[in-house]
Amino acid sequence: MTIKVAVIGASGRMGKEVVKMVLNDEALQLVAAVSPSQAGVDAGELVGMKATEVTVVASLEEAINRAQADVMVDFTVPDLAYEHAKRAIEAGIRPIMGTTGYTPEQIAELDQLCQEHRIGGLIAPNFSIGAILMMKFAQEAAKYMPHVEIIEYHGDQKLDAPSGTSIKTAELIAQTRQELRQGNPAEKETIEGARGGYYEGFRIHSVRLPGVFAQQEVIFGGNGQTLKIRHDSYDRAGYMPGVNHAVKKVMGYTGLVYGFEHIMD
Amino acid sequence: MTIKVAVIGASGRMGKEVVKMVLNDEALQLVAAVSPSQAGVDAGELVGMKATEVTVVASLEEAINRAQADVMVDFTVPDLAYEHAKRAIEAGIRPIMGTTGYTPEQIAELDQLCQEHRIGGLIAPNFSIGAILMMKFAQEAAKYMPHVEIIEYHGDQKLDAPSGTSIKTAELIAQTRQELRQGNPAEKETIEGARGGYYEGFRIHSVRLPGVFAQQEVIFGGNGQTLKIRHDSYDRAGYMPGVNHAVKKVMGYTGLVYGFEHIMD
Amino acid sequence: MTIKVAVIGASGRMGKEVVKMVLNDEALQLVAAVSPSQAGVDAGELVGMKATEVTVVASLEEAINRAQADVMVDFTVPDLAYEHAKRAIEAGIRPIMGTTGYTPEQIAELDQLCQEHRIGGLIAPNFSIGAILMMKFAQEAAKYMPHVEIIEYHGDQKLDAPSGTSIKTAELIAQTRQELRQGNPAEKETIEGARGGYYEGFRIHSVRLPGVFAQQEVIFGGNGQTLKIRHDSYDRAGYMPGVNHAVKKVMGYTGLVYGFEHIMD
Amino acid sequence: MTIKVAVIGASGRMGKEVVKMVLNDEALQLVAAVSPSQAGVDAGELVGMKATEVTVVASLEEAINRAQADVMVDFTVPDLAYEHAKRAIEAGIRPIMGTTGYTPEQIAELDQLCQEHRIGGLIAPNFSIGAILMMKFAQEAAKYMPHVEIIEYHGDQKLDAPSGTSIKTAELIAQTRQELRQGNPAEKETIEGARGGYYEGFRIHSVRLPGVFAQQEVIFGGNGQTLKIRHDSYDRAGYMPGVNHAVKKVMGYTGLVYGFEHIMD
Repeated sequence: MTIKVAVIGASGRMGKEVVKMVLNDEALQLVAAVSPSQAGVDAGELVGMKATEVTVVASLEEAINRAQADVMVDFTVPDLAYEHAKRAIEAGIRPIMGTTGYTPEQIAELDQLCQEHRIGGLIAPNFSIGAILMMKFAQEAAKYMPHVEIIEYHGDQKLDAPSGTSIKTAELIAQTRQELRQGNPAEKETIEGARGGYYEGFRIHSVRLPGVFAQQEVIFGGNGQTLKIRHDSYDRAGYMPGVNHAVKKVMGYTGLVYGFEHIMD
Repeated sequence: MTIKVAVIGASGRMGKEVVKMVLNDEALQLVAAVSPSQAGVDAGELVGMKATEVTVVASLEEAINRAQADVMVDFTVPDLAYEHAKRAIEAGIRPIMGTTGYTPEQIAELDQLCQEHRIGGLIAPNFSIGAILMMKFAQEAAKYMPHVEIIEYHGDQKLDAPSGTSIKTAELIAQTRQELRQGNPAEKETIEGARGGYYEGFRIHSVRLPGVFAQQEVIFGGNGQTLKIRHDSYDRAGYMPGVNHAVKKVMGYTGLVYGFEHIMD
Repeated sequence: MTIKVAVIGASGRMGKEVVKMVLNDEALQLVAAVSPSQAGVDAGELVGMKATEVTVVASLEEAINRAQADVMVDFTVPDLAYEHAKRAIEAGIRPIMGTTGYTPEQIAELDQLCQEHRIGGLIAPNFSIGAILMMKFAQEAAKYMPHVEIIEYHGDQKLDAPSGTSIKTAELIAQTRQELRQGNPAEKETIEGARGGYYEGFRIHSVRLPGVFAQQEVIFGGNGQTLKIRHDSYDRAGYMPGVNHAVKKVMGYTGLVYGFEHIMD
Repeated sequence: MTIKVAVIGASGRMGKEVVKMVLNDEALQLVAAVSPSQAGVDAGELVGMKATEVTVVASLEEAINRAQADVMVDFTVPDLAYEHAKRAIEAGIRPIMGTTGYTPEQIAELDQLCQEHRIGGLIAPNFSIGAILMMKFAQEAAKYMPHVEIIEYHGDQKLDAPSGTSIKTAELIAQTRQELRQGNPAEKETIEGARGGYYEGFRIHSVRLPGVFAQQEVIFGGNGQTLKIRHDSYDRAGYMPGVNHAVKKVMGYTGLVYGFEHIMD
C-alpha cells in the first residue's frame, strides 16, 4: 500500500528535494504540495520533472481539504511549523518536521495531540544518517574523554549561530560527560569571543564561509591524544534517504518522536 | 594490596614509559626490569627518576627467579613476545603484551595456558582509549555507511605497512558491513599502488612522514556526505593510562583477552 | 565586444555547466553546442534555462560550419579532445581543454598550430583557483620541507588513479624539492599497495568514495610538525569562475598554454 | 668560529630545549645559562645531559659579567623580555626573543639600539618553518579568496586567546585581502561568542584542549570550494631548527628584525 504524502513549503530548497524524492519512490504517492508563491503550477514541473496530476496549492488548509494525506513533510520556517504540525495532527495527518526551535511545552502538546489521534509524528533537526552517527559517537566518547569542543561550519549567509545540530550535539554530550569546566580558570580573551560560545563547561565555535554546506567536527582531547568525529554534508539531497526512512517509519508508531536517532533500526 | 609488576624491554622507548608509570603509581610495585643491554643499572635511574631498589637484569629467567611478579608488561618485538608470554604464564605471571603478530594458534595456546594456571592475560595492539573508541565507532558506522577507506599515518622509519591498528580496524569493519567491492570495476591505476592496499572490498592507505607519531582516519562516504573518525596520538605517554588500567584489570579475570576494548568498563 | 563561444560535449555534466555559465554572462555569446545524443534540442532548454536560438548539433564539424566561434570549450574525453583541439585551431577557434592525458608531442604540436594561426589556446587539468593555489603552495613548501605525501579523494566511480591534479602537483613538487627517497629502506607492505603509488621518492594515495566530489591534501612532515595544504571542491559550478576567466584571457595571447596557473594575474 | 650563546630562562620548557640544542651543535658554544631557581646547578645536568663547565646563574647581569656572549636566546615572559633585550644590546649581545607582546614603540627603540651598537637582533613569535609557511600562504591566498576564518588549537592551560601566531596571521591576511565584512549582516548568536573573535571583517576561533600542543588552520571559502592551510606542531623540539638558524643568521646583519620569515633564505 502506498503512503500518501503532502509536502509543505514545496518550492523551498528542501521542499523541492522532498517532492522529487516522493515522486521517485513507488511506495510513496504525492497527494498535495503547498507553496503560496507557486499555487497553480504542476508539482512535477515545479521540480524539473514531468507533469503529475498534483497542482500546487497555496495553503495547508487547501491541501487538507483536497486530499487525505497519511504523512505531511514540512521544512518551512520555525514560526509556521508549530501551527502546521498542530493542524495536521487534528486532521489525522502524521507530521514530519525538519525545523527546530520548538519550546518543550510545544513538543509536549504535539505529543499529547498525536497520542489522542493515535498517530505518529517526528521532529528532527537533522535527517542525515552520518550526522546522527556523529552525535551518537560524540555522546559516547564524552564518557571516556570529557574534554571536548565543537566546531561547526555552514554557508556564510546562515542567520543563527551556533547551528541546531551543534546545540543538539552539545546537549547529548552534557548528558554523559562528567561535570567539568574546561580551560584555564585565569584564561583571558584579547579579542572578545575568540574562545567561542560557552555551553555547560565547554565551547562551541561557528564558522561561516561561502562554499561550505554543512559540516561539524567534535574534538576530544586528553593524554597526548585527540579523537575527532567529523561529518561533512555536501547537498540537500543527502538528507533524503533519512526523510524517506522517516515517512515509512512514522506509519508504525504512536506519539511524537524528537530526534531521528530514535527511529533508526 | 599493591600489584607486583615486571617490565620486559625496560630500556626500550615504551618500556621506559611503563617503568615510569609503575614507579609513579602507589598501587603498583616495580619488582623486576629486564634489558640485556642495561643489566646492572638501577631501574629508576634508567628512566631519569631517583634510584629504586630494583636493578635491571638481563633476562626474563633472572627476573622470574629473583622476584615473584603478579603481572609482566612486555613491549618487545613480536618474535620474542610469544616465548616471553608462555614462560611468564608457566611461572604464574599474568602477561600484558603490547606487540602484534601472533598466529591464531599461538593465541589459542596462550589462552589455554592461562586457563590452566587460572590467571588472566592480555594481548593488545593498542592501549589508547581514543584509538579504541575510533575502532568501535568505525565498526558501528560501517553498518549504516558501508563505503569506507582507512588512512593511517606513522613516522617515516616505521617498517611495516599497513599498521597493526589499521588492520585491526579493518577486521572490525569487515565484521559488520555488508559485503561490497567498492570502486569502479573498470578502475585502473596509472601509478601502481595508488589505490592503496585491498582488504575485503575496501582500501587501506599508509602514510609515512617524519614529525608524525601515530594517526588514523576512517572515512565513510555516501549520499552527499562523509563521516570521518580520526585519532591522533602524539606520544607514548598517551598509552600509559591504558596500560595502567590493564595491569589492574588483569588481576580480576581468567584466560587470555585479545584487544583492550574487551576490558573497558 | 562579446566573445563567441562553442561548447563541445554540451550534454555532459561539465558541458552543461559551461553552457549555463556562457548564457549567464553578457560578455559571452553561445554560438554553438555540440552533443551527438542531443542534436536538435535547444541549448538553453538542455540545461534547464529558457530557449535560445542555438540548436544543439551532432558534431564539431557542423558547429564550425554554422557559426564562427572565437573560443571552443571542451570537457569531453581525452581520446577525442586532441582531435577536437587540432580541428578547432585549424578553423581559427581558440581551444580551452579541460581534459588531461596529452602526450608531450601532442602539446608541442598544438602549440605550433596555435602559433601558426596566431591564436591562443589552453589545456588545464584544473580550473579551480583554490586547486591552483594548493599546487603553487605545495611546490613552494617542498623547498623547505622535502618530506611529502599526497592524498587525493574522488567519487567512487572515477576510472583512473591517481587523479590528474595529483600527478600535476607531484610534478611541481619534484621540480623544487631536493632528491630524496622517503621512508624506511627496509619497509615492507604486508598488504600490497598500502604505501600508495611511488613518484620520484614520495607517495600518492587515491581514495574513492561516494559522496566525495574532488579533494586533495598535500602533507609535509618534519621536526615535530606537519604542514597540510588541502583543497575541497564540492561541485562542478566551482570550476566556472576559472573557465570564464580562461575564455576571456585566451583572446589576448598567442600559443598554447598548459596549466591555468599561467593565466592567473 | 663558534658562536657564544647565553640562554635566559634556561630551566623553562623552551629554555631547556635551547640549552640542549646549543650543546648538540659544535658550531655553537654555551657560555651562560640563567635561571633564578636553578642557580648553581650544572647547565648540562639541568637538561639531562652530561656535565658542562657552565654553571647556571641567577640573573642576566651575572651572565653578562661572567661571559662575553655573542647571542642571547630568551623565551621568558613578555614582561621581562623587553628589559632583557635592552640590557643585552647595551652589552653588545644579539638578542633572539621568542616572546610576543611588545609595543611598536618598544620594537622601534630596540631596533634603534641595535643600529647604534651595530648588531643584529630578532623578535619572532614563531620559530617553526611550517608555521611561517602557513602564514605566508595564507597571506597570498587571501588575495584570491577573500572569505577566510582562522581556527587555532592549543593546550587547555594556555592563558591568552587568540594565540600570538593567529593574530600575526590575521594581520598578514588583512594586509592583502580586499576589505570585506563577512557573514550575514543580520546574523545573530544564540550563544554569545559562538562566532568567534572579530578581526577586520573575519573571525578567529581559539580551541583549548589537553593533548594538543599547537595547531592552526586557515580556511578560505568560495565558489563551491574551500582551501585549508594547516600547521600542526607536536613538541617544542620542533622549534629548534628555527632557533638554530636564527642564532647563526643574527651574526650577519644589523638592526632588529621582527618575524622569522624575514631571515628565511
